[in-house]
Amino acid sequence: MATMASLFLKTPGPSQSLPKTHKTHFVLPQNLPLSWRSKYRAGPPAAARIRCGLIEPDGGKLVELIVEEPQRDLKRRQTLSLPQIKLSKIDIQWVHVLSEGWASPLKGFMRESEFLQTLHFNSLRLGDGSVVNMSVPIVLAIDDSNKNNIGDSSSVALVDDKDNPIAILNDVEIYKHNKEERTARTWGTTAPGLPYAEQAITHAGNWLIGGDLEVIEPIKYHDGLDRFRLSPAELRDEFTRRNADAVFAFQLRNPVHNGHALLMTDTRRRLLEMGYKNPVLLLHPLEVLEDGVLDPETTVVSIFPSPMHYAGPTEVQWHAKARINAGANFYIVGRDPAGMGHPLEKRDLYDADHGKKVLSMAPGLERLNILPFKVAAYDKTQNGMAFFDPSRPQDFLFISGTKMRALAKNKESPPDGFMCPGGWKVLVDYYDSLTPSENVRVPEPVPV
Amino acid sequence: MATMASLFLKTPGPSQSLPKTHKTHFVLPQNLPLSWRSKYRAGPPAAARIRCGLIEPDGGKLVELIVEEPQRDLKRRQTLSLPQIKLSKIDIQWVHVLSEGWASPLKGFMRESEFLQTLHFNSLRLGDGSVVNMSVPIVLAIDDSNKNNIGDSSSVALVDDKDNPIAILNDVEIYKHNKEERTARTWGTTAPGLPYAEQAITHAGNWLIGGDLEVIEPIKYHDGLDRFRLSPAELRDEFTRRNADAVFAFQLRNPVHNGHALLMTDTRRRLLEMGYKNPVLLLHPLEVLEDGVLDPETTVVSIFPSPMHYAGPTEVQWHAKARINAGANFYIVGRDPAGMGHPLEKRDLYDADHGKKVLSMAPGLERLNILPFKVAAYDKTQNGMAFFDPSRPQDFLFISGTKMRALAKNKESPPDGFMCPGGWKVLVDYYDSLTPSENVRVPEPVPV
Repeated sequence: MATMASLFLKTPGPSQSLPKTHKTHFVLPQNLPLSWRSKYRAGPPAAARIRCGLIEPDGGKLVELIVEEPQRDLKRRQTLSLPQIKLSKIDIQWVHVLSEGWASPLKGFMRESEFLQTLHFNSLRLGDGSVVNMSVPIVLAIDDSNKNNIGDSSSVALVDDKDNPIAILNDVEIYKHNKEERTARTWGTTAPGLPYAEQAITHAGNWLIGGDLEVIEPIKYHDGLDRFRLSPAELRDEFTRRNADAVFAFQLRNPVHNGHALLMTDTRRRLLEMGYKNPVLLLHPLEVLEDGVLDPETTVVSIFPSPMHYAGPTEVQWHAKARINAGANFYIVGRDPAGMGHPLEKRDLYDADHGKKVLSMAPGLERLNILPFKVAAYDKTQNGMAFFDPSRPQDFLFISGTKMRALAKNKESPPDGFMCPGGWKVLVDYYDSLTPSENVRVPEPVPV
Repeated sequence: MATMASLFLKTPGPSQSLPKTHKTHFVLPQNLPLSWRSKYRAGPPAAARIRCGLIEPDGGKLVELIVEEPQRDLKRRQTLSLPQIKLSKIDIQWVHVLSEGWASPLKGFMRESEFLQTLHFNSLRLGDGSVVNMSVPIVLAIDDSNKNNIGDSSSVALVDDKDNPIAILNDVEIYKHNKEERTARTWGTTAPGLPYAEQAITHAGNWLIGGDLEVIEPIKYHDGLDRFRLSPAELRDEFTRRNADAVFAFQLRNPVHNGHALLMTDTRRRLLEMGYKNPVLLLHPLEVLEDGVLDPETTVVSIFPSPMHYAGPTEVQWHAKARINAGANFYIVGRDPAGMGHPLEKRDLYDADHGKKVLSMAPGLERLNILPFKVAAYDKTQNGMAFFDPSRPQDFLFISGTKMRALAKNKESPPDGFMCPGGWKVLVDYYDSLTPSENVRVPEPVPV
């Protein structure tokens, strides 16, 4: 944890002002490796899409929905006179996501027209005719008694499980929650056992309520990690402070190993070759980073607060789109991003290549440069991670995230040079700390 | 049938030349009824989208894939040296659809990048960055033995059940047919009992093959109705010949009754009020039209050759998009278009309003003016069809397509003035002619 802090610590105090976005176009060097752009990407040539400075947020302006300090007491009192909806933990995570503008230009939970566009088109058309990507429904489910209780009220109070007010939802619209259709169009299956569906859809109410959010204060989890949950505005401030002229985002769920590090270092090298002077890595892991494998000067580590859907090609668009709002203009994508095994059948739910293909073609992501993964593996001849060389496959060992977690759970060690020892110890300690009930099998997500 | 012929007969002989598309913009009268445009439609104002003359086909040029007469023998001989794929009846219908450019700019069965864009975005991005709508996968399934047989051949011959050559598919690409994902993303359910899935997906092969089509000769069904299957090029020629300055399309599966006629006549009146001088109706029914209810001078009746999916909001986009290619710039849409009952549950599969909402927001359909249905019902005080007046609901009788078919099957009569007697007799005779096995219950599509 201490090492993460050394990379970047959240600035205390208010620093919500937006950095100016630069609109000048970057003149692309002649040696742009075109292979980086997927062959599936049609449209204008890359040169037209790569800009200097920070990429603009979707819709042109970062949405921030947190009530200013002086108004907070007033808003808290206002909630007392409104019908109340109790939020689940996942609902509160979505309020967090919305409040900081990760889903810009969404101003709250989706109304029906946004929900339908998300399900059918994975994108939203804005008032000016432009299109932004939006692949995952960000919706709030309520049941019949909530709906009756709300009646004709145009605003409702959203509260946590202890009835503390979290937010006010205004100009609400209530519409049907067709769970089967939502699940089918989001995951491409309706098989029972999808973790998100079981947690947040199957037993949720039969109605959805959309509206504009006013979030009473910043969402905190008080788990010791809040300082790593940088908002898009804070990330943009940091990138501006560092004079970044390219920001490349890398999300992963599995512990960072030296193969990832090799990939990220290599990406930076290639961006420098392309003519960028100061590319900065936005690393959004779920685990820790240690031992100086990556350069703190050019790396920002931060936690992405969004709940996971494991919806593969649909979800990876959300992961990428949210990073535009945080200022990233390059996105690294690997094999089967956000994928998992089929809940019922012995196969992966998604084709391993579909994530990057869909991402490369997705409406509203034209401004984002997609960098497909190179495959790194453990090179037995060098006792370290290296890019896979297809001419000598026998020399390489593939260690998946699943395999890695299995080793850590059993307190076995990976080969030397696979991961920094400090990182491995954190992982082993983590699994050791889990109570048996937390450690039961859920459908195993396929590792990024 | 004789009456249909009096409306418009297919011109014999070759007349495949494309009409010139007019690019001048129509200056919209001030009294455009904005309520016609769905409130869900964002984007540029209507005035920018309504043009004089025929609307351009998607991609700018109508695709036609039929081999010219002098080359046909050569192509037939060529098929003898190619690996063969046997087409089902539905496959041949899709070859028909593709060959005439209903799915322009598609040049053949979808390759994987088109398939993925269709499933995820209901649209295709073209080389110039523009977007066209494409909501329904137009794909050809093959099995393992077909795939082995094709090997490395870049072209395959498509043949009918008697091994007659139908087409050649060039530059083929073979990719996985994930049937569950295809079904879930197209229908929003994977419940067994979807008619199209049972006919064309569930028992189809595990691979899809895409490529560019060369269709050896125009597809004919020899069922006495071929002359009513006008191609988009023929329809465009006809609209041009009639100097149409607006073309409004109306598709329906149920027998045309006087309520539909009222709606279509009223639409024409409103288009005249908007300033159009010669609006022409493109009526694409599955049944007959009789007794001069609609004016032959301003009506073109033609059969739309596409197989039905009953995929509701997903499919209605295809129905609308195909009509752009046939020259229509207005599309009338009703309640629950292309919908059906849920195969397993006692409810409609789709919300009755979602079809028109999704259609109004669909990417690539911005140029098409969507005209939502007005509800017509049988007015008992007038013994005829009239637009429903909510101030006196007791005077109105709703007769659904399902109800209508039930009456006809039982040789009962609808109320006077509901439908022209000649049309009703055709309907009763039709059901009388069905053998019992043809008359068994399939999941009952909800009527348009």
